[in-house]
Amino acid sequence: MRCKDKSAVTNWSDQGVIHTSNSPHCRLHSVPIRAVQIDQGFWGLRMKANRERGIPRLLELLEEHGVVDNFRRLSGRKKVKRRGALFTDSDLYKWMEGAAFVLQSQGDPELRKTLEGIIDDVLAAQGEDGYLNTYFVDERAGERFQRLETDHEFYCCGHLIQAAVAYYRATGQTKFLDGARRFADYLITVFGPDKRQGKSGHPELEMAMVELYRTTGDRRYLDFAGFLLDQLGFTSLLGMEGHAVRAAYACCGAADYYAEIGDNSFGQTLERLWEDMVEGKIYITGGIGARHAGEAFGEPYELPNFRAYAETCAAIANIMWNWRMLLVTGEARFADLMERTLYNGFLAGVSLDGTRYFYVNPLASSFGVNVRAGDTGRQEWYGTTCCPTNVVRMFASLPGYFYSTSAEGIWIHLYDNSRLDWHLEGGQDVSLVQRTQYPWEESIEITVNPESSAHFALFLRIPGWCPKAKVVVNGAEVAKVPQPGNYLKLDRVWSPGDKVELEFSMPVTPVEAHPRLRENTRSVAVMRGPIVYCIEGVDNPDIPVLDVQLGVNPKSPERMFVHEFRPELLGGVTIVRARASMPTNQFRKPLYWPLQEHKPEPRREAQVTLIPYYAWANRGPSPMQVWILEKNS
Amino acid sequence: MRCKDKSAVTNWSDQGVIHTSNSPHCRLHSVPIRAVQIDQGFWGLRMKANRERGIPRLLELLEEHGVVDNFRRLSGRKKVKRRGALFTDSDLYKWMEGAAFVLQSQGDPELRKTLEGIIDDVLAAQGEDGYLNTYFVDERAGERFQRLETDHEFYCCGHLIQAAVAYYRATGQTKFLDGARRFADYLITVFGPDKRQGKSGHPELEMAMVELYRTTGDRRYLDFAGFLLDQLGFTSLLGMEGHAVRAAYACCGAADYYAEIGDNSFGQTLERLWEDMVEGKIYITGGIGARHAGEAFGEPYELPNFRAYAETCAAIANIMWNWRMLLVTGEARFADLMERTLYNGFLAGVSLDGTRYFYVNPLASSFGVNVRAGDTGRQEWYGTTCCPTNVVRMFASLPGYFYSTSAEGIWIHLYDNSRLDWHLEGGQDVSLVQRTQYPWEESIEITVNPESSAHFALFLRIPGWCPKAKVVVNGAEVAKVPQPGNYLKLDRVWSPGDKVELEFSMPVTPVEAHPRLRENTRSVAVMRGPIVYCIEGVDNPDIPVLDVQLGVNPKSPERMFVHEFRPELLGGVTIVRARASMPTNQFRKPLYWPLQEHKPEPRREAQVTLIPYYAWANRGPSPMQVWILEKNS
Repeated sequence: MRCKDKSAVTNWSDQGVIHTSNSPHCRLHSVPIRAVQIDQGFWGLRMKANRERGIPRLLELLEEHGVVDNFRRLSGRKKVKRRGALFTDSDLYKWMEGAAFVLQSQGDPELRKTLEGIIDDVLAAQGEDGYLNTYFVDERAGERFQRLETDHEFYCCGHLIQAAVAYYRATGQTKFLDGARRFADYLITVFGPDKRQGKSGHPELEMAMVELYRTTGDRRYLDFAGFLLDQLGFTSLLGMEGHAVRAAYACCGAADYYAEIGDNSFGQTLERLWEDMVEGKIYITGGIGARHAGEAFGEPYELPNFRAYAETCAAIANIMWNWRMLLVTGEARFADLMERTLYNGFLAGVSLDGTRYFYVNPLASSFGVNVRAGDTGRQEWYGTTCCPTNVVRMFASLPGYFYSTSAEGIWIHLYDNSRLDWHLEGGQDVSLVQRTQYPWEESIEITVNPESSAHFALFLRIPGWCPKAKVVVNGAEVAKVPQPGNYLKLDRVWSPGDKVELEFSMPVTPVEAHPRLRENTRSVAVMRGPIVYCIEGVDNPDIPVLDVQLGVNPKSPERMFVHEFRPELLGGVTIVRARASMPTNQFRKPLYWPLQEHKPEPRREAQVTLIPYYAWANRGPSPMQVWILEKNS
Repeated sequence: MRCKDKSAVTNWSDQGVIHTSNSPHCRLHSVPIRAVQIDQGFWGLRMKANRERGIPRLLELLEEHGVVDNFRRLSGRKKVKRRGALFTDSDLYKWMEGAAFVLQSQGDPELRKTLEGIIDDVLAAQGEDGYLNTYFVDERAGERFQRLETDHEFYCCGHLIQAAVAYYRATGQTKFLDGARRFADYLITVFGPDKRQGKSGHPELEMAMVELYRTTGDRRYLDFAGFLLDQLGFTSLLGMEGHAVRAAYACCGAADYYAEIGDNSFGQTLERLWEDMVEGKIYITGGIGARHAGEAFGEPYELPNFRAYAETCAAIANIMWNWRMLLVTGEARFADLMERTLYNGFLAGVSLDGTRYFYVNPLASSFGVNVRAGDTGRQEWYGTTCCPTNVVRMFASLPGYFYSTSAEGIWIHLYDNSRLDWHLEGGQDVSLVQRTQYPWEESIEITVNPESSAHFALFLRIPGWCPKAKVVVNGAEVAKVPQPGNYLKLDRVWSPGDKVELEFSMPVTPVEAHPRLRENTRSVAVMRGPIVYCIEGVDNPDIPVLDVQLGVNPKSPERMFVHEFRPELLGGVTIVRARASMPTNQFRKPLYWPLQEHKPEPRREAQVTLIPYYAWANRGPSPMQVWILEKNS
């Protein structure tokens, strides 16, 4: 009851990407997207591309492929045949949620008008009973709810609810939200612990239902989320397995539910699954779901590079899950993984211009070497276009992931040029301004502006990747900075104009993998800051980039590398250069040969250039790899 | 016309696994199964298990699963529902072909009676028009030939023809062959260059049609095989890709066609595909088809160990293809690969007792360590039971693969206790007797018994794996033995009782993989003779077999290993022992960590035992791997 009472007094626009202000089992509380402005900088550029190019182009494509017309057809507004797979409604909803996040950030009358036109089309297609799905109608009406494992009806409903909530938070208009609630209410009349059972094949509705509860205060939605999680058998899961997006969405829903309910069996399961994932089933990029077959998690250490699946949607799901874990616990390991996944596993899924996508994100590619059917590079559309629509909403929601509040003060999770205009949980207004060239440069300047001097804590994430962090407050160095992978708590009286200077050292760092990850034996991935690097053919003419070996000295690896910011390259990136050794072109080995016949192969040395992994495949077909052999391996 | 004339004069029982006696573009000609007796020895034991346990048990299971009743139902002999997938007819046909191969080897009145009962059931189900398929009947009759890419109708017909040919060769009875011809004739009335086009999704009928031509002399079947290959676009294939069994069956059919036609575009394509396979798409075991998704060939060097697919049927298809290439060319590389695949990739697919099978053949397994759904070990039945039925027919056909003839004399491809009773192509009778403990011991004694002294050549394969071969004829050492991977030609006057002694040195040999095969970086597979070894948990209690490292000195690798024949173990195998280093149990590394934080891990040394890979998973759940890290990797 307490939850309900509290949420009722929250202003609709005071709610974040997820609304945890009243969640009793969250240590942190999200801030609204509108409270955060991402300025010119790393993410600002990408969000601009998303807003100006990605979102409009994707709507054109959704229209071209009949995804919107499927709704117009149902209401009789257009006489067309239904097109696309049975889950295409969700693609439109994700686009709508993304557009609504943009509207939470900034006024955009044209986008609002477009979005509201689509909302009108969607709602006009809704049935009398609240049911809304463009596939299970007409001759397929009898199939409604018949195959929950495969039909994506609950999944589409979840995305409808999320889009409606986002639009409500952008505008305060309840029409769309009311429509989504009608569908939710209808589901609740049909399914439930004492009604029909129903295990959805694609989790998603769980988190939507919790959010609908948070938004409306109606406890039935929370209970329904609990019912759905129970149907999944969530608390008896032992490890991350099966379809990666589905598994991680289930974890998002369970984390949301746990944040409200505090049932330890959920907390323990979430922790168990998270550890299982990070100990053996995640790429260095934060990508998850190694297997093509079933788009699934593999066995521990089954993380092929060329044959990585690492669906872009799965990276997004991983970010969303870690965000929820962070809000519940306030532990930096979740923010670290969120950051790693944002800069690498997620960002690789979209071209620099924001209009071409990868569904699958390999960590090595012979693209341009072995040309086969399917070597298409980034595409602006996929038959199953879940990833592009997920990308545009992820970008648009990004401001919501930078900052949080707790009873103790304000938390900074992500670093980039940005401005927070929000208030302490006690009520006092505070603004924060970050100025930085992160992730390319080591320094970040934060200006703290409470409306007047106030005692509160500022929590600053000391990134897990950072070997040496220096923090200066108003010119005085902070004596005790915690180990990387923790939050530094600056608990003091803050006055307007106070300055915090952060210096996160960013040596170029070769990283090794667990010995069971046999494909990476005697190999290193190169990182600098949160950025995972790769070697791509286009930067290295006449060099067989899949065969190079890096000379790595574990005692002073930084000496092996030089780095340089290249403003004109790939939208502005820091590149890394290294000496490498490679076989001469004449040499050709058989697939297997006896060790005693081993002869040293003729090799040559050259300088190679590495670029951020996320930026690969923006310049045509080119081989690429992240994990590079060490010399003399 | 020449072909037709020649085949017409061949006695039905003078034909081998495939009948190449009259194939104008074959250098070698197969000998019939009945001409070769495999005695007590390596293969003799396994063939006995196959005959006495595998074949009867599999028929029981085919009956239990309704596969035979599907035919009885169609003829009205039984009132049952059709059961099983649309391709189950082929499973019965493969079993029948296997049973017929057994009958070619030896009289077995009971098996013959059983087989003839089934033939009667099969033929009773045949349609008036010759069509015979238990799936596309009744309510599905209208679907006949509608979906050749997926419906396996041509595939099933191919196996019907092969079974009928094998039975004809065993007995001289034409009833079954006549039935198969009726179906073939019907296909020819429907499909063809000037009739309906038809691209089968699962090649198989190609080789069956060529064999039907060889058996009957009816040229239309050969032409139809050419039509089918043309529909596949065979001669424009650039590399091995797609479903491995389908691709290799297509190659078998194309090689058969090439043997008759001599069209160079087929010869060149076959060579191109074979090279593409051996240069980057084959396991050290001879297994092919790396990917679970699509049961397909991967990219070059995409050969995961844990996640190998390497379907047993694909290994069999690889043997069948190499056999055909060998007959066409007389080149030992094909016999070498056939041998490698027989002892390793194929033989791993069946339990020692001949009744439990693997569909998928990983080269490493955490079976028994990470227990998951699906970790079932060998099974006596699979929903898609193509592999078990393929295994029983492979074993039964094995005598046909040992020897060939050419105009120059007699060829010995495989070594084991065996006896050939056959004749030179000139007509004179010759018998050969092999006495050996191969593949465990290095020596083979061959007694040559022409009916009277005669000048001809004996071709002996010097295995590609053999670093040093010694050949002694009647006590005198042969001065010039060719390089491994060639045939030694002993061209002389042979008299009854002449003795050839072979000594193939079999040092335990660590083998490396191409550097692009990154999963095997700094790893070795251990071989001795044709046998690929593995380390299995059950032989190595308290040792983490997936983490061991072998101390390998490339300059004298043989010193690192000792081997020992263990008659009581796994039906009698030579084991290999080696010193190995492994992490202590306390040590647990994260998945990724910076190289500069590298600390040597606490390790211990112990002796480990390796067994032949083919024998793994015969003693319950246990982890296993073929590729073992080298020390200090």
